Amino acid sequence: MGAPPGYRPSAWVHLLHQLPRADFQLRPVPSGFAPREQEYQQALLLVVALAGLGLGLSLIFIAVYLIRFCCCRPPELPGAKSPPPGGGCVTWSCIAALLVGCASIGIGFYGNSETSDGVSQLSSALLHANHTLSTIDHLVLETVERLGEAVGTELTTLEEVLEQRTELVAAARAARRQAEAVAQQLQGLAFWQGVPLSPLQVAEDVSFVEEYRWLAYVLLLLLELLVCLFTLLGLAKQSKWLVIVMTVMSLLVLILSWGSVGLEAASAVGLSDFCSNPDTYILNLTQQETGLSLDILNYYFLCNQAVSNPFQQRLTLSQRALANIHSQLQGLEREAVPQFPSAQKPLLSLEETLNVTEGNFHQLVALLHCRGLHKDYGTALRGLCEDALEGLLFLLLFSLLSAGALATTLCSLPRAWALFPPSDDYDDTDDDDPFNPQQESKRFVQWQSSI
Amino acid sequence: MGAPPGYRPSAWVHLLHQLPRADFQLRPVPSGFAPREQEYQQALLLVVALAGLGLGLSLIFIAVYLIRFCCCRPPELPGAKSPPPGGGCVTWSCIAALLVGCASIGIGFYGNSETSDGVSQLSSALLHANHTLSTIDHLVLETVERLGEAVGTELTTLEEVLEQRTELVAAARAARRQAEAVAQQLQGLAFWQGVPLSPLQVAEDVSFVEEYRWLAYVLLLLLELLVCLFTLLGLAKQSKWLVIVMTVMSLLVLILSWGSVGLEAASAVGLSDFCSNPDTYILNLTQQETGLSLDILNYYFLCNQAVSNPFQQRLTLSQRALANIHSQLQGLEREAVPQFPSAQKPLLSLEETLNVTEGNFHQLVALLHCRGLHKDYGTALRGLCEDALEGLLFLLLFSLLSAGALATTLCSLPRAWALFPPSDDYDDTDDDDPFNPQQESKRFVQWQSSI
Repeated sequence: MGAPPGYRPSAWVHLLHQLPRADFQLRPVPSGFAPREQEYQQALLLVVALAGLGLGLSLIFIAVYLIRFCCCRPPELPGAKSPPPGGGCVTWSCIAALLVGCASIGIGFYGNSETSDGVSQLSSALLHANHTLSTIDHLVLETVERLGEAVGTELTTLEEVLEQRTELVAAARAARRQAEAVAQQLQGLAFWQGVPLSPLQVAEDVSFVEEYRWLAYVLLLLLELLVCLFTLLGLAKQSKWLVIVMTVMSLLVLILSWGSVGLEAASAVGLSDFCSNPDTYILNLTQQETGLSLDILNYYFLCNQAVSNPFQQRLTLSQRALANIHSQLQGLEREAVPQFPSAQKPLLSLEETLNVTEGNFHQLVALLHCRGLHKDYGTALRGLCEDALEGLLFLLLFSLLSAGALATTLCSLPRAWALFPPSDDYDDTDDDDPFNPQQESKRFVQWQSSI
Repeated sequence: MGAPPGYRPSAWVHLLHQLPRADFQLRPVPSGFAPREQEYQQALLLVVALAGLGLGLSLIFIAVYLIRFCCCRPPELPGAKSPPPGGGCVTWSCIAALLVGCASIGIGFYGNSETSDGVSQLSSALLHANHTLSTIDHLVLETVERLGEAVGTELTTLEEVLEQRTELVAAARAARRQAEAVAQQLQGLAFWQGVPLSPLQVAEDVSFVEEYRWLAYVLLLLLELLVCLFTLLGLAKQSKWLVIVMTVMSLLVLILSWGSVGLEAASAVGLSDFCSNPDTYILNLTQQETGLSLDILNYYFLCNQAVSNPFQQRLTLSQRALANIHSQLQGLEREAVPQFPSAQKPLLSLEETLNVTEGNFHQLVALLHCRGLHKDYGTALRGLCEDALEGLLFLLLFSLLSAGALATTLCSLPRAWALFPPSDDYDDTDDDDPFNPQQESKRFVQWQSSI
């Protein structure tokens, strides 16, 4: 009840997590997330290799298709003007493929921005957690210093003023002991002090990698957009050199697309394994990196009724000690001030310190409660396992669609190109004069056959 | 230091907030957000009216253009076969406009999903705040009940057991008084109890409205996509009836687009006014709706070092009373248990209750601290003023682009239509036989002039 509704693996996570995994010898690999185990790495590399296989198959298919098209052309009858059959189909399939490519670019932009959103959620949650942890340290340090100062100056002055009455000096000494006990208890609360892992550093690293990932995808998307537009332009203008350049560029983008399919599929599979049960992995990793006790980590990572607050004891003891100091100071004020007026100033100053300490203590209780840090953990997980994974799947869809579209384009372009009028005939005529009587009929036939 | 870095108005908010506003008499209106003032409502309605003006102007422009085209055609020479000049330009501008329309649809989908994201952030922050507030109420209720039960049963038993020794009974009575004081102090902490405003209800209302807004935009986007595609199809197939239907549909979508321009512009302007200084408005509104004191609202909405915790006093008093109960129970255990063994059971049970109460108290301190609720407030503001506003601006861009594209299409379609071959000639010929010798030359002239 203390914790807000947390992260739950989505349907995509379950689906991807249930896919079978295998290592290089095709032995099944358990689908728990274990990025440091060789078997698991091999399973992910095998996913990348599947994309490589896809690239190889599509290249072979394109090559076979084009070789068949070049070598097995039906012999043209010498007098026939009609172009080879299927010309219109070729140009239309090329245009349809390019339109699919353009649509996939839209999907890619969406996926890229979604992934980027998810990762920025992750890093902002890390920054917030870092802020909480450093505020705890800072608050403990400040409170302990303030208490130490009060003990060193005001309580010493008080003891000196009251030295004639031993029972009052004893009360002041008791207050000093309690203050020292509070300082000691509080010091134990700064649990992140001296921990080598900094969420700030992790957030910066994540943002750094994400920035370059985002940029790389934007460049790939723009490159594909340019290829689509210039290919369409080349087809519309029937410009042979533009179509040749774009065929080469399409081949390049096809290879890049299959490469990104591999990376995205492996990342999505790895991420789904991580996201299906993140607590255990994160708990172990954090324990290794920070050396913190399992009590504390369980409290923050699980944050439910079953896990008790590991700081409860310290907090209760500090709270009782603070209440005792308060009652001792009140007793001293009642007993000592009428007899020793000079005791009033240090007593008032001590009460002021006590009030500030109690305020800081309540702030510490709030910061140490698992609610805040667990919410950051939930936000980070949702960013990574919902938005970023969804974005990755959109990017995967983009890459697959564009790989398909580019393969179709690569099959169609050389055939469309073969349908273009021979450049010698065409380039010499006046482009702006469509009514050249010699060209008219011939070019209409070409155009008609090309759509 | 206690609060994480909060919401800051973005550059868009500043820019939109600085635009001049005027009422129906064109007197300047201050740009502070005041949705209940007539002047401000008039200023927003004037923004909507501007979009209406845009629609009127574009309709007049289209009408004038088409009338000029119909009536001021250069007289055709009887023998001339050449089509009116500018035919290619018309078809190309129509296709370019449709492509711009398709691109704007992509922008619209992005903007719609961004707005939806922002609003869902807002409602999830409201749900989280509701969870915090109801947990506070629940925790207070539970703790007060538990304390009341302990006072009613265990402390009464204890007093009965110890009735022979008046000083022990006095100690038990003191513990009872302290427990009652704690219960009374705690009851004052459930500040949201009986407040008529429910964040849950607000979140549900917001989600409900957003769902229909999202759906309406998706339908508009799909409608525009269909219009673009079928217009392209009509142009490609030179189908007159399709082009006529699409001209009418374009006119409808043009009107819808200008309508959405008005709504988006007014929402964006209003939202920018709200977002440039949300604290004051929200503070006043919440005070009116809830009747809570300004201390409490300031603490949660500002949450900085300058605003002290309004519950500090109550928390400190409860904490001291709990510590006093603890020391009294310990005293009783030391004094009474050797003489009255039957006192041990109620004492142990009381200590157990005290421990649970202290745990609940720490949880209450954490929940009451401004950090959690202020973070929800920041998330809600960021959702509304960053994501939702950005999405609205993308939607505005979509509407403007599509209005421009549709106006161009509406100007071009009737002219392109005039360039189509007469349907009598065309429809009677075989579509699949491009080599009909009688049609060939004529149709090539038509095609050439249309691109």
